[in-house]
This record gives sequence, structure tokens and C-alpha cells, in this order.
Amino acid sequence: MIKQLIENIKQKNAPIVVGLDPMLSYVPEEIRTKAFMEYGETLEGAAEAIWEFNKRIVDATYDLIPAVKPQVAMYEQFGVPGMAVYERTVSYCQSKGLVVIGDIKRGDIGSTSEAYAAGHLGRVKIGNKEFTGFHEDFSTVNPYLGSDGIKPFLKVCKENNKGIFILVKTSNPSSGEFQDRLIDGRPLYEHVGEKVADWGEELMEGDYSNVGAVVGATYPEQGRVLRAIMPKSFILVPGYGAQGGKGADLVDFFNEDGLGAIVNSSRGIICAYQNEKYAQYGAENFADASRKAVEDMTADINGALEAAK
Amino acid sequence: MIKQLIENIKQKNAPIVVGLDPMLSYVPEEIRTKAFMEYGETLEGAAEAIWEFNKRIVDATYDLIPAVKPQVAMYEQFGVPGMAVYERTVSYCQSKGLVVIGDIKRGDIGSTSEAYAAGHLGRVKIGNKEFTGFHEDFSTVNPYLGSDGIKPFLKVCKENNKGIFILVKTSNPSSGEFQDRLIDGRPLYEHVGEKVADWGEELMEGDYSNVGAVVGATYPEQGRVLRAIMPKSFILVPGYGAQGGKGADLVDFFNEDGLGAIVNSSRGIICAYQNEKYAQYGAENFADASRKAVEDMTADINGALEAAK
Repeated sequence: MIKQLIENIKQKNAPIVVGLDPMLSYVPEEIRTKAFMEYGETLEGAAEAIWEFNKRIVDATYDLIPAVKPQVAMYEQFGVPGMAVYERTVSYCQSKGLVVIGDIKRGDIGSTSEAYAAGHLGRVKIGNKEFTGFHEDFSTVNPYLGSDGIKPFLKVCKENNKGIFILVKTSNPSSGEFQDRLIDGRPLYEHVGEKVADWGEELMEGDYSNVGAVVGATYPEQGRVLRAIMPKSFILVPGYGAQGGKGADLVDFFNEDGLGAIVNSSRGIICAYQNEKYAQYGAENFADASRKAVEDMTADINGALEAAK
Repeated sequence: MIKQLIENIKQKNAPIVVGLDPMLSYVPEEIRTKAFMEYGETLEGAAEAIWEFNKRIVDATYDLIPAVKPQVAMYEQFGVPGMAVYERTVSYCQSKGLVVIGDIKRGDIGSTSEAYAAGHLGRVKIGNKEFTGFHEDFSTVNPYLGSDGIKPFLKVCKENNKGIFILVKTSNPSSGEFQDRLIDGRPLYEHVGEKVADWGEELMEGDYSNVGAVVGATYPEQGRVLRAIMPKSFILVPGYGAQGGKGADLVDFFNEDGLGAIVNSSRGIICAYQNEKYAQYGAENFADASRKAVEDMTADINGALEAAK
């Protein structure tokens, strides 16, 4: 699947991913009102509003972007109807040729980890048939439980040509509380990065592995170190835009081949119309604002990569 | 909510929790066949089979147990219909007076963590109304992202009288890969345990906090140390039975008041009929086998606690 992601990145000339992390407050009133008229102020109504919001953003941007990253928590908060729209969003994006990175940050052990992997990346056997639950192309995984949590994902990825991004150094201010603590003189995230490189060896597909890492845009120095520790792993980089990361900070997350990283923006894209910079679009043209924000983000990152050559 | 859990434990005289982690292979053929006849060999059919299996076990054991711990991965693997049965299971157990610990091991940051907390323990606002998504009483949370991941859960717990159990030292063989690494001369899990005690201070309810910890039954020595580090935190102890833990190993997870720990068994209870020890019940009386396994487990743990007095 990493080959497909790389192909998409090259074709669109955009090492970016749009985070589909909708909150109801992001959805223009017109869409909300229409959904509530049809389904009431209910979980179903909220889910419908979010679906329409997602669809319009995807329709306005899919020709410019290689991938999307829906954040499952934003759907899970609306219970079962929310999960149904999560699945619908995954399907719709795939029908548009986009690679879907499910930001699910799951992590458990043994048969439980295998159940997560089957539900999100693999297939589940029912009687004589097989089904897919949420069928993302990649998912994010938490490493705290060690190899017992990761290996079932590796197995499912291998069988289904899928991939994972393992949390290494997250973008938030308190990520250092545990991740930066020194073990044998080096921070925990470096040890996790080394394991990511190990785990990834058996899932190579071309020049890169189907096992990638999450490293926050807000920590460019750590990104440079981790880039060297995991040369064959793609780095999924959250924290661009709203969390403070800029294109110029991100150059060291990439390899010399211009690949190796994919930068996520969520609010910065899907909420662009609420940003002063794109206010002229107005709520009715929110998806056009998102398109312009995608163009600006891609130019910022490609410009920084060009300047660093 | 920890008060309610303690009340249930005292009333049933059983510091145990039944893990509702159904796999299709656990469900007796008769139930599977009936569900597939009605819904086909589909995700809906699998979900229905699991629902019926859960319901019968709950009906046969609820008067003996204080709490259940459904493992969401086992439902999530069946996609949206699986999540619907997860919610239905939570509701049904609550209607039987059981405390429900959602074993979801979620962990993210900021507004994302808040969305998970709202969806599983709190309420979500839609227009002028409020709804609950999965409405568990407690949920398990992963600490790798630090305070930014935990604080939104604390806020939601406070507002809704709910609680969490934070992963500290998990029961699996490879849990030491990261959790046992020494930081300033002490393993990571002790540092996490200290944070659990800190986070828990603002959520005291009576003698205990609504912030608990997960420590595996398979690591009794670590359990003793962590018991001392987090004196006001309840410890949720997985790994009893199938994973190898025995009652006698668990005494040090408890405080001198006989409280402070709740021991989980999943396969050992819900799959009892597949165990040689309970084979005489047969598949048709699987729920009675589960009831007997609950009685045996409670006697084992209470006996060990009595012997240690």
C-alpha cells in the first residue's frame, strides 16, 4: 500500500494528507439545518451533517491530494450513526482514488490486537464468507504494549497489502512527559523509532516499508533524528498549520529522494473558511476555501523542499 | 462511579469483572446457526450471534458479579453492526445493575481525546439537545501521549461521574519492551503510576479515585510496587486464568481494606464450556458453565485474600 501512497503523492505532486476530523461547529449552518430538518437534532442528524460536509470537501480537493486521514474519534463521539458515517467516508474517499489513513491509534495485545487489525485493515471470517469492517488502507497504532500489540497488525498488513503508522513522537506539548524520558541516555521515542525500523523490515514494498511512524511537525529536531533512525519508514507528520508547524520546519522529515514524509493538516484545511485568510469565500463556499488552503499548503511545503535542495 | 463499583463489589462479595470479549468461535453452533438463518452469514448475522451469546452469559451471572468489561475490538471487527451490538451490550448490562468498564484503550490529544471521552463516557451536544454515544461507566485509556491525552478524560469524568483505568503495566509478555525500561533508575511503568496517582487526586470519591490503573495479573511483583505508588487508585487486573494469573498471585494488588483491585477474566468465564474442567455442561448449557466458572474464580480470589489476612 505504501507504493500506492507514493504513486499518489508523485501524481498529485503533493506530500500532504487532509485530516477529515469534523466537529459540528465546523459544519456551515446551512448544512446543519438541512440535516436536522431531515433527521432531527439527533445522532443521525449530526452524522448526516458531517457526511455532507466531508463529501463536499472531498469533491473539491480529491484531484489535488493523495490521501485523507479521518480521525475516528470525531465520528465515534456520535455513537453508532457516527461510525456508520466513518465507514461511508472511508468508502467514498477510496472511490475517488484516495489512500485512506484511519487515525484510530488503537493498541492492544494478541487476539484483541488482531481483531482491531481485522476490523480496520483486514477481513473477518463469518461462516464461509469474508467481510471487511472499516477497510482503511493504513491505520495509526499505539506502541505502548510492545511487539505483542504490533505483530498482529503486521500479519494482517502482509495478508491484505495494508500499512500502519506507529506513534513515535506525537505533536502535543505534553508528549515529552513519557516519550522524551531518557533510557540508556536516549529518549524513549528513539527506542520506539528503532523498533519501528525493525518491525518494518519484513514489510518492505519497493524502497519503503508499509510500517511508518507518526512524528509531530512541532518537533522538527526530533524529526531529523528519527528520519535517520528509520530511513525506510514513511513519516506521517501531524501538527502543520493549526498546531504551529510550517513548511520550512518540515524539510528534515523528508529523505533526499523527496519522499519519506506526508504532512497532515486537519482544521487548517477543512475549516479554512473560518480562518481570516480565507474569509472572503464565505460559509457557502467553504469547500472552495478548503481547495485554496490545500493549494497554499502544497506550495508552502514544495517550496521549502525546493529551497532546501 | 468508583463508589458504585465498590458498592457492587461489596454487595456481591466478588472483586471480579467478567470480560465480554466474544469471538465467533466461542459462540455455540446452535446460536450461530440461528443468527445466520435470520441475518445470513453477514456482519449483522455475526453481531446477532454475539449479542445472544452475551445476553445469555449476563443473564446467568449478573447476580454474582459487580461489573463487566466488554472489549470493544471484538465488536469493532464486525464493523458498524458490531458497534451497534457493543452499545446494546453496554445498555443491557447497565439495566442489570452492572458497572460497565469499556475496554477501549483510546488515547489521543486535545479535542480528539475530548471526543473519545464524550463518545464513551460523556455527552455530545447536537443543536439544543444532548446525547450519549456508548455511555460506558469506566473506560481504559492509553497514557503514551501524556497529560494532553488524559486531561480531557478527567474533565468528562468529573462532569458525568465516570471513571477511567489508565494502562500502566500490561499483562502481555512483551509489555516490558518499553514499560520496563529504566528512567532515572526506575521502570517507565512506575513513572506512569505516579502520574496516575497525581491525575487521580482531583477525582476522589470517598476513599478511592475515579482514576484507576491497569496492571496485569501476570506481574504480581510489579503489582505490589504499584499498589504502594497509587494507594487511592483501583487496579483493574487482567490476565487471570487463561493468561496464567492465579488468586494467590493477586493478594498484593489489594489494599488492607480488602478493596483496591478488581480482577478480570474473559475467556476463562465466557468460554468455560470449552474448558475440560466444565465440559460436562455441554455447549447447550454454556451459560451455566460460565456461572460455575464465576463462582470458582470468586472463591479462588476470596480464599487467597482470606488466607493472607
